[in-house]
Amino acid sequence: MDRRKSFVSSLEDLRADLLRMGAAVERAIHDAVKSLVNRDQALAERVVQGDDAIDQLELDIESQCLSLLALQQPMAKDLRVIGTALKVITDLERMADHAVDIAQVTIALHGQRLIKPLIDVPRMAELAQAMVRKSLDAYVDENVEAARAVIEADDEVDHLYAQVFRELLLIMMENPRSIEQATHLLLVAQYLERIADHATNLGEWVIYMVTGERPPAQRYSRGPG
Amino acid sequence: MDRRKSFVSSLEDLRADLLRMGAAVERAIHDAVKSLVNRDQALAERVVQGDDAIDQLELDIESQCLSLLALQQPMAKDLRVIGTALKVITDLERMADHAVDIAQVTIALHGQRLIKPLIDVPRMAELAQAMVRKSLDAYVDENVEAARAVIEADDEVDHLYAQVFRELLLIMMENPRSIEQATHLLLVAQYLERIADHATNLGEWVIYMVTGERPPAQRYSRGPG
Repeated sequence: MDRRKSFVSSLEDLRADLLRMGAAVERAIHDAVKSLVNRDQALAERVVQGDDAIDQLELDIESQCLSLLALQQPMAKDLRVIGTALKVITDLERMADHAVDIAQVTIALHGQRLIKPLIDVPRMAELAQAMVRKSLDAYVDENVEAARAVIEADDEVDHLYAQVFRELLLIMMENPRSIEQATHLLLVAQYLERIADHATNLGEWVIYMVTGERPPAQRYSRGPG
Repeated sequence: MDRRKSFVSSLEDLRADLLRMGAAVERAIHDAVKSLVNRDQALAERVVQGDDAIDQLELDIESQCLSLLALQQPMAKDLRVIGTALKVITDLERMADHAVDIAQVTIALHGQRLIKPLIDVPRMAELAQAMVRKSLDAYVDENVEAARAVIEADDEVDHLYAQVFRELLLIMMENPRSIEQATHLLLVAQYLERIADHATNLGEWVIYMVTGERPPAQRYSRGPG
Protein backbone atom coordinates (compact mmCIF):
# COMPACT_ATOMS: atom_id res chain seq x y z
CA MET A 1 0.00 0.00 0.00
CA ASP A 2 1.33 3.45 -0.79
CA ARG A 3 1.59 6.12 1.85
CA ARG A 4 -1.58 8.02 0.95
CA LYS A 5 -3.67 4.85 0.67
CA SER A 6 -2.46 3.71 4.05
CA PHE A 7 -3.26 7.13 5.51
CA VAL A 8 -6.79 7.11 4.10
CA SER A 9 -7.35 3.66 5.53
CA SER A 10 -6.06 4.84 8.94
CA LEU A 11 -8.51 7.75 8.85
CA GLU A 12 -11.32 5.32 8.13
CA ASP A 13 -10.31 3.19 11.10
CA LEU A 14 -10.27 6.31 13.25
CA ARG A 15 -13.74 7.27 12.10
CA ALA A 16 -15.08 3.78 12.76
CA ASP A 17 -13.63 3.76 16.27
CA LEU A 18 -15.05 7.18 16.99
CA LEU A 19 -18.50 6.03 15.93
CA ARG A 20 -18.14 2.93 18.07
CA MET A 21 -17.33 5.19 21.02
CA GLY A 22 -20.29 7.45 20.15
CA ALA A 23 -22.67 4.50 20.06
CA ALA A 24 -21.40 3.27 23.44
CA VAL A 25 -21.89 6.73 24.95
CA GLU A 26 -25.40 7.04 23.50
CA ARG A 27 -26.29 3.68 25.04
CA ALA A 28 -24.81 4.68 28.42
CA ILE A 29 -26.94 7.83 28.53
CA HIS A 30 -30.04 5.93 27.46
CA ASP A 31 -29.51 3.19 30.03
CA ALA A 32 -28.68 5.65 32.83
CA VAL A 33 -31.95 7.55 32.30
CA LYS A 34 -33.87 4.29 31.97
CA SER A 35 -32.36 3.03 35.23
CA LEU A 36 -33.57 6.17 36.99
CA VAL A 37 -37.08 6.14 35.53
CA ASN A 38 -37.56 2.40 36.17
CA ARG A 39 -35.59 2.36 39.45
CA ASP A 40 -33.48 -0.42 37.93
CA GLN A 41 -30.42 -0.91 40.15
CA ALA A 42 -28.88 -3.66 38.04
CA LEU A 43 -28.99 -1.50 34.92
CA ALA A 44 -27.45 1.41 36.85
CA GLU A 45 -24.61 -0.87 37.97
CA ARG A 46 -24.01 -1.93 34.37
CA VAL A 47 -23.70 1.72 33.30
CA VAL A 48 -21.12 2.34 36.02
CA GLN A 49 -19.13 -0.75 35.09
CA GLY A 50 -19.31 -0.02 31.37
CA ASP A 51 -17.48 3.29 31.76
CA ASP A 52 -14.01 1.71 31.81
CA ALA A 53 -14.51 0.39 28.27
CA ILE A 54 -15.44 3.90 27.09
CA ASP A 55 -12.39 5.40 28.81
CA GLN A 56 -10.26 2.78 27.07
CA LEU A 57 -11.76 3.67 23.68
CA GLU A 58 -10.86 7.31 24.34
CA LEU A 59 -7.23 6.39 25.06
CA ASP A 60 -7.03 4.18 21.95
CA ILE A 61 -8.45 6.85 19.66
CA GLU A 62 -6.25 9.51 21.23
CA SER A 63 -3.09 7.56 20.52
CA GLN A 64 -4.26 6.82 16.96
CA CYS A 65 -4.71 10.58 16.47
CA LEU A 66 -1.29 11.46 17.89
CA SER A 67 0.45 8.85 15.72
CA LEU A 68 -1.36 10.00 12.59
CA LEU A 69 -0.44 13.62 13.32
CA ALA A 70 3.18 12.81 14.05
CA LEU A 71 3.86 10.33 11.29
CA GLN A 72 1.79 11.59 8.40
CA GLN A 73 2.07 15.39 8.38
CA PRO A 74 -1.57 15.78 7.36
CA MET A 75 -2.63 19.10 5.90
CA ALA A 76 -5.82 21.18 5.77
CA LYS A 77 -8.94 18.99 5.85
CA ASP A 78 -7.10 15.85 7.03
CA LEU A 79 -5.56 17.84 9.86
CA ARG A 80 -8.99 19.12 10.84
CA VAL A 81 -10.45 15.61 10.78
CA ILE A 82 -7.79 14.42 13.23
CA GLY A 83 -7.92 17.55 15.39
CA THR A 84 -11.70 17.20 15.54
CA ALA A 85 -11.45 13.55 16.58
CA LEU A 86 -9.08 14.54 19.43
CA LYS A 87 -11.63 17.03 20.79
CA VAL A 88 -14.77 15.00 20.08
CA ILE A 89 -13.54 12.10 22.18
CA THR A 90 -13.14 14.44 25.16
CA ASP A 91 -16.75 15.57 24.81
CA LEU A 92 -17.94 11.98 24.39
CA GLU A 93 -16.01 10.86 27.43
CA ARG A 94 -17.55 13.62 29.55
CA MET A 95 -21.01 12.62 28.39
CA ALA A 96 -20.29 9.07 29.50
CA ASP A 97 -19.10 10.39 32.87
CA HIS A 98 -22.41 12.19 33.29
CA ALA A 99 -24.27 8.99 32.37
CA VAL A 100 -22.39 7.38 35.26
CA ASP A 101 -23.31 10.34 37.49
CA ILE A 102 -26.99 9.74 36.65
CA ALA A 103 -26.67 6.00 37.28
CA GLN A 104 -25.11 6.83 40.68
CA VAL A 105 -28.25 8.80 41.54
CA THR A 106 -30.36 5.72 40.73
CA ILE A 107 -28.14 3.79 43.11
CA ALA A 108 -28.31 6.52 45.81
CA LEU A 109 -32.12 6.57 45.65
CA HIS A 110 -32.36 2.79 46.03
CA GLY A 111 -35.45 1.73 47.98
CA GLN A 112 -36.93 5.24 48.13
CA ARG A 113 -40.34 5.88 46.63
CA LEU A 114 -40.25 8.80 44.23
CA ILE A 115 -41.81 11.88 45.81
CA LYS A 116 -43.60 12.58 42.58
CA PRO A 117 -43.18 11.85 38.91
CA LEU A 118 -39.83 13.09 37.67
CA ILE A 119 -41.17 16.50 36.59
CA ASP A 120 -39.61 17.34 33.25
CA VAL A 121 -36.48 15.28 33.79
CA PRO A 122 -37.49 12.54 31.30
CA ARG A 123 -38.39 15.22 28.74
CA MET A 124 -34.94 16.83 29.22
CA ALA A 125 -33.37 13.38 28.87
CA GLU A 126 -35.21 12.77 25.61
CA LEU A 127 -34.07 16.09 24.15
CA ALA A 128 -30.46 15.63 25.28
CA GLN A 129 -30.35 12.11 23.84
CA ALA A 130 -31.77 13.31 20.52
CA MET A 131 -29.04 15.99 20.42
CA VAL A 132 -26.32 13.40 20.99
CA ARG A 133 -27.70 11.12 18.27
CA LYS A 134 -28.13 13.96 15.80
CA SER A 135 -24.66 15.37 16.46
CA LEU A 136 -23.14 11.95 15.74
CA ASP A 137 -25.24 11.68 12.56
CA ALA A 138 -24.05 15.15 11.53
CA TYR A 139 -20.48 13.98 12.11
CA VAL A 140 -20.94 10.86 9.96
CA ASP A 141 -22.66 12.76 7.16
CA GLU A 142 -20.40 15.84 7.52
CA ASN A 143 -23.67 17.76 7.47
CA VAL A 144 -23.23 21.39 8.53
CA GLU A 145 -26.97 22.16 8.52
CA ALA A 146 -27.72 19.22 10.81
CA ALA A 147 -24.89 20.37 13.10
CA ARG A 148 -26.41 23.85 13.31
CA ALA A 149 -29.81 22.34 14.21
CA VAL A 150 -28.18 20.53 17.16
CA ILE A 151 -26.63 23.79 18.37
CA GLU A 152 -30.00 25.54 18.20
CA ALA A 153 -31.75 22.76 20.12
CA ASP A 154 -29.55 23.52 23.13
CA ASP A 155 -31.64 26.57 24.02
CA GLU A 156 -34.67 24.37 24.64
CA VAL A 157 -32.69 22.16 27.00
CA ASP A 158 -31.37 25.23 28.87
CA HIS A 159 -34.92 26.48 29.16
CA LEU A 160 -36.18 23.16 30.52
CA TYR A 161 -33.30 23.04 32.99
CA ALA A 162 -34.19 26.44 34.45
CA GLN A 163 -37.80 25.26 34.73
CA VAL A 164 -36.93 21.95 36.41
CA PHE A 165 -34.63 23.81 38.79
CA ARG A 166 -37.41 26.17 39.90
CA GLU A 167 -39.97 23.37 40.22
CA LEU A 168 -37.66 21.26 42.36
CA LEU A 169 -36.92 24.22 44.64
CA LEU A 170 -40.66 24.68 45.16
CA ILE A 171 -41.15 21.00 45.93
CA MET A 172 -38.38 21.14 48.52
CA MET A 173 -39.90 24.21 50.14
CA GLU A 174 -43.33 22.61 50.32
CA ASN A 175 -42.09 19.30 51.60
CA PRO A 176 -38.80 19.25 53.50
CA ARG A 177 -38.85 15.45 53.52
CA SER A 178 -38.38 15.60 49.75
CA ILE A 179 -35.15 17.60 49.99
CA GLU A 180 -32.61 14.83 49.63
CA GLN A 181 -34.35 13.25 46.68
CA ALA A 182 -35.12 16.57 45.02
CA THR A 183 -31.46 17.58 45.34
CA HIS A 184 -30.43 14.41 43.56
CA LEU A 185 -32.96 15.05 40.79
CA LEU A 186 -31.65 18.58 40.48
CA LEU A 187 -28.18 17.17 39.89
CA VAL A 188 -29.61 14.80 37.26
CA ALA A 189 -31.12 17.80 35.46
CA GLN A 190 -27.71 19.48 35.60
CA TYR A 191 -25.97 16.39 34.17
CA LEU A 192 -28.47 16.27 31.30
CA GLU A 193 -27.95 19.94 30.62
CA ARG A 194 -24.19 19.35 30.41
CA ILE A 195 -24.68 16.36 28.13
CA ALA A 196 -26.62 18.69 25.83
CA ASP A 197 -23.76 21.22 26.05
CA HIS A 198 -21.31 18.54 24.94
CA ALA A 199 -23.60 17.59 22.04
CA THR A 200 -23.55 21.30 21.12
CA ASN A 201 -19.76 21.19 21.16
CA LEU A 202 -19.88 18.17 18.86
CA GLY A 203 -22.07 20.16 16.46
CA GLU A 204 -19.53 22.98 16.52
CA TRP A 205 -16.67 20.55 15.87
CA VAL A 206 -18.52 19.15 12.85
CA ILE A 207 -18.82 22.67 11.41
CA TYR A 208 -15.10 23.22 12.01
CA MET A 209 -14.18 19.88 10.45
CA VAL A 210 -16.17 20.56 7.27
CA THR A 211 -15.63 24.30 6.83
CA GLY A 212 -12.50 25.17 8.87
CA GLU A 213 -14.59 27.81 10.65
CA ARG A 214 -14.04 27.68 14.40
CA PRO A 215 -16.82 28.85 16.70
CA PRO A 216 -15.89 31.85 18.89
CA ALA A 217 -15.87 29.73 22.06
CA GLN A 218 -17.11 26.41 23.36
CA ARG A 219 -20.35 26.51 25.30
CA TYR A 220 -20.86 25.10 28.70
CA SER A 221 -23.46 25.28 31.39
CA ARG A 222 -23.96 28.60 33.01
CA GLY A 223 -25.99 27.68 36.08
CA PRO A 224 -29.74 27.27 36.16
CA GLY A 225 -30.18 30.86 35.02
CA MET B 1 17.54 29.45 12.51
CA ASP B 2 17.74 25.75 11.70
CA ARG B 3 14.70 23.52 11.86
CA ARG B 4 15.40 22.01 15.29
CA LYS B 5 16.25 25.37 16.83
CA SER B 6 13.05 26.85 15.51
CA PHE B 7 11.09 23.86 16.85
CA VAL B 8 12.63 24.21 20.31
CA SER B 9 11.77 27.89 20.34
CA SER B 10 8.17 27.11 19.27
CA LEU B 11 7.88 24.62 22.15
CA GLU B 12 9.08 27.33 24.53
CA ASP B 13 6.43 29.72 23.21
CA LEU B 14 3.81 27.02 23.69
CA ARG B 15 4.92 26.44 27.25
CA ALA B 16 4.88 30.18 28.03
CA ASP B 17 1.34 30.54 26.62
CA LEU B 18 0.17 27.54 28.58
CA LEU B 19 1.52 29.03 31.79
CA ARG B 20 -0.11 32.36 30.96
CA MET B 21 -3.41 30.50 30.56
CA GLY B 22 -2.80 28.61 33.82
CA ALA B 23 -2.17 31.86 35.71
CA ALA B 24 -5.36 33.40 34.28
CA VAL B 25 -7.38 30.35 35.33
CA GLU B 26 -5.87 30.37 38.83
CA ARG B 27 -6.83 34.03 39.19
CA ALA B 28 -10.37 33.39 37.92
CA ILE B 29 -10.91 30.66 40.52
CA HIS B 30 -9.43 32.84 43.27
CA ASP B 31 -11.57 35.85 42.31
CA ALA B 32 -14.74 33.79 41.94
CA VAL B 33 -14.41 32.35 45.44
CA LYS B 34 -13.50 35.77 46.83
CA SER B 35 -16.56 37.30 45.15
CA LEU B 36 -18.76 34.72 46.86
CA VAL B 37 -17.21 35.06 50.31
CA ASN B 38 -17.20 38.89 50.18
CA ARG B 39 -20.51 39.15 48.27
CA ASP B 40 -18.64 41.27 45.72
CA GLN B 41 -20.88 41.63 42.63
CA ALA B 42 -18.40 43.73 40.66
CA LEU B 43 -15.67 41.12 41.08
CA ALA B 44 -18.09 38.36 40.05
CA GLU B 45 -18.94 40.31 36.88
CA ARG B 46 -15.22 40.65 36.09
CA VAL B 47 -14.75 36.88 36.37
CA VAL B 48 -17.64 36.31 33.95
CA GLN B 49 -16.31 38.85 31.47
CA GLY B 50 -12.73 37.57 31.73
CA ASP B 51 -13.72 34.12 30.48
CA ASP B 52 -13.63 35.11 26.80
CA ALA B 53 -9.91 35.90 27.04
CA ILE B 54 -9.27 32.44 28.53
CA ASP B 55 -11.33 30.77 25.78
CA GLN B 56 -9.27 32.70 23.21
CA LEU B 57 -6.01 31.52 24.82
CA GLU B 58 -7.27 27.95 24.55
CA LEU B 59 -7.97 28.37 20.82
CA ASP B 60 -4.55 29.98 20.22
CA ILE B 61 -2.67 27.24 22.04
CA GLU B 62 -4.72 24.58 20.33
CA SER B 63 -3.82 25.86 16.88
CA GLN B 64 -0.15 26.18 17.88
CA CYS B 65 -0.24 22.51 18.93
CA LEU B 66 -1.92 21.34 15.73
CA SER B 67 0.58 23.25 13.56
CA LEU B 68 3.54 21.90 15.50
CA LEU B 69 2.21 18.37 15.19
CA ALA B 70 1.51 18.69 11.49
CA LEU B 71 4.60 20.57 10.38
CA GLN B 72 7.32 19.19 12.62
CA GLN B 73 6.73 15.45 12.94
CA PRO B 74 7.83 15.47 16.58
CA MET B 75 8.79 12.16 18.16
CA ALA B 76 8.69 10.61 21.65
CA LYS B 77 9.09 13.27 24.37
CA ASP B 78 8.34 16.22 22.05
CA LEU B 79 5.19 14.50 20.88
CA ARG B 80 4.15 13.96 24.48
CA VAL B 81 4.80 17.61 25.34
CA ILE B 82 2.46 18.74 22.56
CA GLY B 83 -0.15 16.05 23.21
CA THR B 84 -0.11 17.02 26.89
CA ALA B 85 -0.57 20.70 26.06
CA LEU B 86 -3.63 19.82 23.93
CA LYS B 87 -5.26 18.02 26.84
CA VAL B 88 -4.12 20.37 29.61
CA ILE B 89 -5.81 23.36 27.94
CA THR B 90 -9.12 21.47 27.95
CA ASP B 91 -8.82 20.90 31.69
CA LEU B 92 -7.80 24.53 32.29
CA GLU B 93 -10.69 25.80 30.21
CA ARG B 94 -13.17 23.70 32.22
CA MET B 95 -11.74 25.04 35.45
CA ALA B 96 -12.29 28.58 34.17
CA ASP B 97 -15.88 27.65 33.24
CA HIS B 98 -16.46 26.48 36.79
CA ALA B 99 -14.98 29.75 38.11
CA VAL B 100 -17.64 31.50 36.01
CA ASP B 101 -20.28 29.12 37.42
CA ILE B 102 -19.23 30.14 40.94
CA ALA B 103 -19.27 33.85 40.04
CA GLN B 104 -22.80 33.34 38.67
CA VAL B 105 -23.85 32.04 42.09
CA THR B 106 -22.49 35.24 43.67
CA ILE B 107 -24.63 37.15 41.17
CA ALA B 108 -27.70 34.98 41.81
CA LEU B 109 -27.42 35.50 45.58
CA HIS B 110 -27.17 39.28 45.20
CA GLY B 111 -28.80 41.12 48.10
CA GLN B 112 -29.48 37.96 50.13
CA ARG B 113 -27.98 37.64 53.60
CA LEU B 114 -26.09 34.40 53.96
CA ILE B 115 -28.10 31.92 56.02
CA LYS B 116 -24.97 30.96 57.87
CA PRO B 117 -21.24 31.03 57.27
CA LEU B 118 -20.33 29.09 54.17
CA ILE B 119 -19.74 25.82 56.04
CA ASP B 120 -16.63 24.19 54.61
CA VAL B 121 -16.94 25.78 51.20
CA PRO B 122 -14.00 28.20 51.71
CA ARG B 123 -11.88 25.31 53.00
CA MET B 124 -12.73 23.29 49.88
CA ALA B 125 -11.89 26.34 47.76
CA GLU B 126 -8.50 26.70 49.44
CA LEU B 127 -7.64 23.05 48.85
CA ALA B 128 -8.81 23.11 45.23
CA GLN B 129 -6.84 26.29 44.51
CA ALA B 130 -3.70 24.80 46.09
CA MET B 131 -4.12 21.73 43.85
CA VAL B 132 -4.36 23.92 40.73
CA ARG B 133 -1.28 25.93 41.70
CA LYS B 134 0.74 22.82 42.56
CA SER B 135 -0.27 21.01 39.38
CA LEU B 136 0.94 23.97 37.31
CA ASP B 137 4.20 24.05 39.30
CA ALA B 138 4.62 20.32 38.70
CA TYR B 139 4.10 20.98 34.98
CA VAL B 140 6.75 23.74 34.91
CA ASP B 141 9.26 21.70 36.90
CA GLU B 142 8.34 18.41 35.16
CA ASN B 143 8.19 17.05 38.72
CA VAL B 144 6.55 13.60 38.89
CA GLU B 145 6.59 13.45 42.69
CA ALA B 146 4.81 16.81 42.97
CA ALA B 147 2.27 15.62 40.39
CA ARG B 148 1.56 12.50 42.45
CA ALA B 149 1.03 14.65 45.56
CA VAL B 150 -1.65 16.64 43.69
CA ILE B 151 -3.41 13.41 42.69
CA GLU B 152 -3.40 12.22 46.30
CA ALA B 153 -4.80 15.52 47.60
CA ASP B 154 -7.98 14.92 45.58
CA ASP B 155 -9.26 12.42 48.15
CA GLU B 156 -9.43 15.15 50.80
CA VAL B 157 -11.48 17.38 48.50
CA ASP B 158 -13.84 14.49 47.71
CA HIS B 159 -14.22 13.86 51.42
CA LEU B 160 -14.98 17.53 52.15
CA TYR B 161 -17.50 17.59 49.30
CA ALA B 162 -19.44 14.66 50.74
CA GLN B 163 -19.42 16.42 54.13
CA VAL B 164 -20.57 19.79 52.74
CA PHE B 165 -23.31 18.00 50.79
CA ARG B 166 -24.67 16.33 53.93
CA GLU B 167 -24.44 19.51 56.00
CA LEU B 168 -26.31 21.55 53.40
CA LEU B 169 -29.06 18.91 53.16
CA LEU B 170 -29.51 19.12 56.94
CA ILE B 171 -29.67 22.92 56.83
CA MET B 172 -32.35 22.77 54.14
CA MET B 173 -34.39 20.27 56.15
CA GLU B 174 -34.19 22.40 59.29
CA ASN B 175 -34.98 25.65 57.54
CA PRO B 176 -36.96 25.50 54.30
CA ARG B 177 -36.39 29.20 53.72
CA SER B 178 -32.70 28.38 53.25
CA ILE B 179 -33.38 25.96 50.41
CA GLU B 180 -32.66 28.19 47.44
CA GLN B 181 -29.43 29.51 48.87
CA ALA B 182 -28.28 26.14 50.15
CA THR B 183 -28.92 24.64 46.71
CA HIS B 184 -26.67 27.25 45.15
CA LEU B 185 -23.95 26.59 47.73
CA LEU B 186 -24.27 22.89 47.01
CA LEU B 187 -23.58 23.61 43.35
CA VAL B 188 -20.55 25.72 44.36
CA ALA B 189 -19.20 22.76 46.31
CA GLN B 190 -19.72 20.61 43.24
CA TYR B 191 -17.87 23.09 40.99
CA LEU B 192 -14.93 23.14 43.42
CA GLU B 193 -14.88 19.39 43.50
CA ARG B 194 -14.69 19.33 39.70
CA ILE B 195 -11.94 21.94 39.66
CA ALA B 196 -9.97 19.60 41.94
CA ASP B 197 -10.70 16.72 39.53
CA HIS B 198 -9.27 18.75 36.66
CA ALA B 199 -6.17 19.56 38.75
CA THR B 200 -5.85 15.80 39.29
CA ASN B 201 -6.02 15.31 35.53
CA LEU B 202 -3.24 17.90 35.14
CA GLY B 203 -1.11 15.93 37.60
CA GLU B 204 -1.73 12.78 35.55
CA TRP B 205 -0.79 14.58 32.34
CA VAL B 206 2.49 15.76 33.90
CA ILE B 207 3.35 12.15 34.75
CA TYR B 208 2.54 11.12 31.18
CA MET B 209 4.59 13.97 29.72
CA VAL B 210 7.68 13.11 31.77
CA THR B 211 7.51 9.31 31.84
CA GLY B 212 5.26 8.32 28.92
CA GLU B 213 3.17 6.35 31.41
CA ARG B 214 -0.54 6.96 30.87
CA PRO B 215 -2.90 6.65 33.85
CA PRO B 216 -5.57 3.94 33.44
CA ALA B 217 -8.36 6.54 33.12
CA GLN B 218 -9.03 10.18 33.79
CA ARG B 219 -10.83 10.93 37.02
CA TYR B 220 -14.00 12.90 37.32
CA SER B 221 -16.60 13.57 39.92
CA ARG B 222 -18.72 10.69 40.97
CA GLY B 223 -21.50 12.44 42.85
CA PRO B 224 -21.37 13.42 46.50
CA GLY B 225 -20.77 9.77 47.45
